[in-house]
Amino acid sequence: MSLTLYVCTTCRAATDDPDGPRAGARLLDALTAALAERDTPVAVEAVECLSVCKRPCTVAVASPGRWTYVYGDLDPASAADTILDGISRYAATPDGLVPWRERPDAFRKGVVARIPPAPVRSA
Amino acid sequence: MSLTLYVCTTCRAATDDPDGPRAGARLLDALTAALAERDTPVAVEAVECLSVCKRPCTVAVASPGRWTYVYGDLDPASAADTILDGISRYAATPDGLVPWRERPDAFRKGVVARIPPAPVRSA
Repeated sequence: MSLTLYVCTTCRAATDDPDGPRAGARLLDALTAALAERDTPVAVEAVECLSVCKRPCTVAVASPGRWTYVYGDLDPASAADTILDGISRYAATPDGLVPWRERPDAFRKGVVARIPPAPVRSA
Repeated sequence: MSLTLYVCTTCRAATDDPDGPRAGARLLDALTAALAERDTPVAVEAVECLSVCKRPCTVAVASPGRWTYVYGDLDPASAADTILDGISRYAATPDGLVPWRERPDAFRKGVVARIPPAPVRSA
């Protein structure tokens, strides 16, 4: 299984110190630290911009054969474990469609968009 | 080249007649009609929901090796040609990144999210 979590490192929170790391970069650090403590089958990739600038922090999760999801409004100080919980549930589905009742609240409220899996092309 | 335009047919405009076709379905019809008149290399797919319910109408454009883009706030009565113009420019790039000055105004203002191309996997 190949599963990628894209994390926007440009996302800036209104309360960010102009001289400090941005909220998106702090979320990336928190996710990297949280991943070291658990066994979520995901590759984390920093991205410069996911074009969801009005709803920081933002991540996207994608996997071949599964729906891609984009989430915003994520708190860099507290969202890392929630995101990894949600991704574990996503990884356990064949198509990326997690039943509504099993989705973390932050994913229910923070969903920005979803995109169908790419059509399977014959070799 | 394989290029897919996903059109949310569930999108509803505030002014929609409750008994008539929804704005998203009307946009799908307009795109199908516009495609018959021109030579844009894209497959149009109806989708039940792209989870951008607050910014109807919504479409997404995806292609292997290119960034995926999601757009909202599209007018079903007038956006079809604009969308196909934007897609032609997208199709002409190697990575889906169209220079800002070449993007249709509806794409600049309506962008909801973008997702990096999937990592290339060796066979």
